[in-house]
Amino acid sequence: MTHEHYQSVIEALYECMAACNHCYDACLKEEDVKMMVGCIRLDRECADICAYFEQAISRGTPFISELAQVCAQICEACGNECKNHHHEHCQKCAEACFKCAEACRSLIA
Amino acid sequence: MTHEHYQSVIEALYECMAACNHCYDACLKEEDVKMMVGCIRLDRECADICAYFEQAISRGTPFISELAQVCAQICEACGNECKNHHHEHCQKCAEACFKCAEACRSLIA
Amino acid sequence: MTHEHYQSVIEALYECMAACNHCYDACLKEEDVKMMVGCIRLDRECADICAYFEQAISRGTPFISELAQVCAQICEACGNECKNHHHEHCQKCAEACFKCAEACRSLIA
Amino acid sequence: MTHEHYQSVIEALYECMAACNHCYDACLKEEDVKMMVGCIRLDRECADICAYFEQAISRGTPFISELAQVCAQICEACGNECKNHHHEHCQKCAEACFKCAEACRSLIA
Repeated sequence: MTHEHYQSVIEALYECMAACNHCYDACLKEEDVKMMVGCIRLDRECADICAYFEQAISRGTPFISELAQVCAQICEACGNECKNHHHEHCQKCAEACFKCAEACRSLIA
Repeated sequence: MTHEHYQSVIEALYECMAACNHCYDACLKEEDVKMMVGCIRLDRECADICAYFEQAISRGTPFISELAQVCAQICEACGNECKNHHHEHCQKCAEACFKCAEACRSLIA
Repeated sequence: MTHEHYQSVIEALYECMAACNHCYDACLKEEDVKMMVGCIRLDRECADICAYFEQAISRGTPFISELAQVCAQICEACGNECKNHHHEHCQKCAEACFKCAEACRSLIA
Repeated sequence: MTHEHYQSVIEALYECMAACNHCYDACLKEEDVKMMVGCIRLDRECADICAYFEQAISRGTPFISELAQVCAQICEACGNECKNHHHEHCQKCAEACFKCAEACRSLIA
């Protein structure tokens, strides 16, 4: 794996973390919060695992493949929830999640 | 899975995190730090994933099984490194890691 | 500061993190989620800083006093929000938050 | 505070986290690890608080000023340790730390 490849995954993880946290914040401000409950939960799960994996890669973790697998799964689940909502923050979040899931899958041994 | 069972896993995760961080701290104070480099690295990896998983369980994450799997693997790896060193902090850490790995495996679907 | 004293703070941090995450999870299941929005936000903030500080103490961080100060403030804020809600999870959370804030203040230099 | 300003702080936090974790990894590979012990410890402290604060800003934490203060202090301490070592990874890390400390100070109310 080249340094450039890791760099592009780290960027996808960062973008996904930021999009999830922005979506989390925006969901909590929506008029109909009740409809956004699944989104709020998964946004937190996804932001946390992306932030975690970003740090783990940057410190040279020996568990790249294992963490990539769980991160890809959580990103996929969050993207699938977000894409069901028409809010712009949800649509952007879904996009970042799917892009990040793909980046993670490229690291699975 | 009963509430009591989760509670016992959370306890094992906490004990493992604390043992790994204590071992990390103690390894950095050892006369022969160079020999402890592998231990220092894995102690951080293991403390971080245990702290992460502890929080994830307590917030009702839907990814119990996936996170349990990666956590069990990291605990196992850290225990295997620590058990090779005769220092008391390493031996205690290895014990906490293996106990935690087993607790995590009990959560894998 | 004795080892026993740190141990009692770590316990308060753990109890507070668990209570905040339980409250977060329960708030998201409440019929009137909209009323719980402030609670949901602060529960996450508080759980995260408690988990962070718990790990930092256990690895021998040199920033005990600085982290204790910010953790005490966040616990206090979360407790003040939670105590306004009659749900049992909120009342229990407020109690854990205030206890933890006090434990943190005992570590401020 | 403008969105652009937060964006530039988040970038500084990310750069600092990555530099600290790279320095941590490189210190553990140095021939004379014993001399790098202070650096290894502070690199972890600093990477962790930067990663934490990056997430907190992106989810709209109400504790910007309090977290900025503790983050600035930890970055400053890590930069001061790293600048004493001639390794390129330490010099680069010190630079990223001081830049991040300044960015954090701009957020203190």
